Amino acid sequence: MSQQLQAKLEQFLDLNKKIKSYNEAIGLLHWDMSTGAPRKGIDTRSETIGMLSSEAFKLQTSEEMKDLISFLKQENEFAALSDVHQRLINDCKKELDRTQSVPAEKVREFSVLTAQAQAKWEVAKEKADFASFEPYLSRIVAMQSEFIDYYGVKDTRYDTLLDMYEPDLTVEKLDEVFSRLKARIVPLQEAISQSVHKPDTSFLKQSFDIKQQSEFSKYILKEMGYDFEAGRLDESVHPFAMGLNPGDVRITTHYYDTDVASAIFSSLHEGGHALYEQNIDSNLAGTLLAEGTSMGIHESQSRLWENMIGRSRAFWEHYYPILRSYFPNQLENISLDQFYEAINKVESSLIRIEADELTYNLHIIIRYEIEKMLFNEQLDVKDLPQVWNEKYKQYLGVTPPDDGAGLLQDVHWSGGDFGYFASYSLGNMYAAQIMNTLAKELPEYENYIKEGKLAPLKEWLTDKVYQYGKSRKPSELIVAITGEELNPDYLANYLENKYKEIYKL
Amino acid sequence: MSQQLQAKLEQFLDLNKKIKSYNEAIGLLHWDMSTGAPRKGIDTRSETIGMLSSEAFKLQTSEEMKDLISFLKQENEFAALSDVHQRLINDCKKELDRTQSVPAEKVREFSVLTAQAQAKWEVAKEKADFASFEPYLSRIVAMQSEFIDYYGVKDTRYDTLLDMYEPDLTVEKLDEVFSRLKARIVPLQEAISQSVHKPDTSFLKQSFDIKQQSEFSKYILKEMGYDFEAGRLDESVHPFAMGLNPGDVRITTHYYDTDVASAIFSSLHEGGHALYEQNIDSNLAGTLLAEGTSMGIHESQSRLWENMIGRSRAFWEHYYPILRSYFPNQLENISLDQFYEAINKVESSLIRIEADELTYNLHIIIRYEIEKMLFNEQLDVKDLPQVWNEKYKQYLGVTPPDDGAGLLQDVHWSGGDFGYFASYSLGNMYAAQIMNTLAKELPEYENYIKEGKLAPLKEWLTDKVYQYGKSRKPSELIVAITGEELNPDYLANYLENKYKEIYKL
Repeated sequence: MSQQLQAKLEQFLDLNKKIKSYNEAIGLLHWDMSTGAPRKGIDTRSETIGMLSSEAFKLQTSEEMKDLISFLKQENEFAALSDVHQRLINDCKKELDRTQSVPAEKVREFSVLTAQAQAKWEVAKEKADFASFEPYLSRIVAMQSEFIDYYGVKDTRYDTLLDMYEPDLTVEKLDEVFSRLKARIVPLQEAISQSVHKPDTSFLKQSFDIKQQSEFSKYILKEMGYDFEAGRLDESVHPFAMGLNPGDVRITTHYYDTDVASAIFSSLHEGGHALYEQNIDSNLAGTLLAEGTSMGIHESQSRLWENMIGRSRAFWEHYYPILRSYFPNQLENISLDQFYEAINKVESSLIRIEADELTYNLHIIIRYEIEKMLFNEQLDVKDLPQVWNEKYKQYLGVTPPDDGAGLLQDVHWSGGDFGYFASYSLGNMYAAQIMNTLAKELPEYENYIKEGKLAPLKEWLTDKVYQYGKSRKPSELIVAITGEELNPDYLANYLENKYKEIYKL
Repeated sequence: MSQQLQAKLEQFLDLNKKIKSYNEAIGLLHWDMSTGAPRKGIDTRSETIGMLSSEAFKLQTSEEMKDLISFLKQENEFAALSDVHQRLINDCKKELDRTQSVPAEKVREFSVLTAQAQAKWEVAKEKADFASFEPYLSRIVAMQSEFIDYYGVKDTRYDTLLDMYEPDLTVEKLDEVFSRLKARIVPLQEAISQSVHKPDTSFLKQSFDIKQQSEFSKYILKEMGYDFEAGRLDESVHPFAMGLNPGDVRITTHYYDTDVASAIFSSLHEGGHALYEQNIDSNLAGTLLAEGTSMGIHESQSRLWENMIGRSRAFWEHYYPILRSYFPNQLENISLDQFYEAINKVESSLIRIEADELTYNLHIIIRYEIEKMLFNEQLDVKDLPQVWNEKYKQYLGVTPPDDGAGLLQDVHWSGGDFGYFASYSLGNMYAAQIMNTLAKELPEYENYIKEGKLAPLKEWLTDKVYQYGKSRKPSELIVAITGEELNPDYLANYLENKYKEIYKL
């Protein structure tokens, strides 16, 4: 490598590090707001976050960044770089191109619009008043559509949006994947709803001491290999995981004193996200590759731990007696089977975030189909409630009493986040596909889980997924691990096997 | 005001706000490191703090800042500005002049030196090995002396250092003040040490549940008017107060399970600092004037609440029965008088931070005299141990067994902070002088305290001290409140009255 190239590369890496430093500060300011910052400091705090975000954005789109990238992308120079550095440069270039393609005043206009829309959405949801939100949502869809033209239309207009969250994922692929998944889980869900077997979940809703819940969450996180010397567990209204730096990956949960399951499964979920970020190869530290490679792969790791491990019978064979020792009075008459069935109860419902792991995918497919109609088929925003309600009736057999429990339930669209929802189901499908390979390569894995030995699973996942961070694309990663591209059959197989047994179908 | 002036002023205020935003982020990153950030994230975290600090410094010394200040300082323009804006500009100019006067490479050299020296100091203190620290301290004194030349020598060389912490304070003034104080408290301390009356403090050292201690600290903070919606109480190794923004002024304390007094008085102390910052006039928000006006005035507010209110008999007449209800087993046989005397026990000792409110001032006077010798009388650093030990013998009648319990006990000098120590005693003297005026203007104040009505005191202090933030100099403030400049007699009077009664002299 020439001396000039070396110098330019170092300058580029320093710039990366500086952006990461801004992101760490911004992350901590957000974390703090969610975990106990005093109410009266919030306004000034928000301005501080705004200032730092704008500084980070300036660096990402600075002349220095542009010059460095165009130097490093020269054929001879680029060829002399390592694979990781090439990917980092490509990533920054992709981001830069996207940002530069939209006029700055449009970006500002969109950020003002979405800020207003989120405030309007909150009230509209509360009052179940779609009419008051509709003009904002129409404007957001129109602007997002303009942005698609600026970014460049991929196979279809909606493809451009999907690619922002899951690089290289296409409508063609998702249509096929979701239709195969739908074909198997809709009948499964119908069979379950007709089954006379109805697990009793009432005992999950007794009074459970929050201090004990918190101790159990910490215990379970330690068991799965979450490193408390490189993270911490706090409480917030909505649970989240946040990687501030490789040695500081925090998670939050939320405790309900009348619900023992919620905090356990949100700890497992966020713990899965955190294991990913805690175990990224240290060579990537300080670069923008030291994060999850896509929303879908990130979600696969949270759902793998929450559902495929955390809601398995093997897991509770070991951990249920321990949970019972935390809550002897509440659980003394509840058997392992009763507990296992209760935490796996399937029920069609109206609200995505409360859905079980089977019907959850139907909530996502509905949103995917609607978003595709909005951007590829000119569905009018004002017709959304009708389409929404029809699809809920068709796929889940339920109809929202009003739009508050219908299409106003999610925050995403008010922020312009179209193309994001698919990630949640991608996570489920990736997770099942990865677990299928894990089962082959680690044939003893169920026995490990039954013995409370989770370390071999974490190590396998580190080896296959975690260590690479963003240095491999999701499509490359899934092929490298499982030998084939995204395949929904693994999720369908997993769900059928599990629920036919539980519901005696 | 001309349109141009208006525009320049706004630009200047925006720059101020941006610097404040950086400071808020840096503050939170520090707060987080002291209150529970995971160990493995510390290295990256420190780099992040370094990056943000350097960005804030760049703004403070930017060409933009220089141009704005020189525009705004033009005679005609300056005259058209409000008093607050004039002071803000003067403050920024003073800081800028100081920074610009020292060559950048000297600043870097000094910051490397002090970073190394602090690491050396820690080990040297631990091992009571002055010889290993001496070369670093000599170099720090030499460089600080060079800086004095760059900054400009005031009346004496040491005056230049004092002015950095307490604007306009002089050696001439402090010599007079400390000699008058010494003349009265040295005999008082001697009389006490010869008194046969020795308060029993052993009951303060029983086992005290930390959860209960924390509840009591929160209760006391609420009583003094600390606003928990604009702050929070956490635990750290060394207690501190930190104003992140006007609506977010945090404090920490430290709980010992074998000591009930430590956390109470550190909560009162940090609570006093916090009341100051929570009650600065909102017109100053977002400017560099929204902080305490000097170290000495800040310390006066912590000590006024910790000692003059918090260690008064009136205070515990109301609060001791309440404290006893938190710890019925430990305190049931302890009377109010016993408790009052125990928390006011005077004893000559070797360690400043463990000293009582009387002898504390002697620890400070010793440090003041030694610093003055270092900078004004060419005292050689290698002679420090001998001078230190002689002065401890002379003023406090004790001799350190080694330098670890002697001149190595404090961190300040390893960081180059000469001129800072005086602030602690200034705080005591300002506090007594302010309390003397409060007693005249609020003659019922002792009855208020006895009834647990602390709000009128907080309101009076807000009116006289807090609201002004840094918009009045300490010397102006003390004259405006009390009608005279700093006068040590009020502290001497207060200490004599209080301790003659306790020690039956």
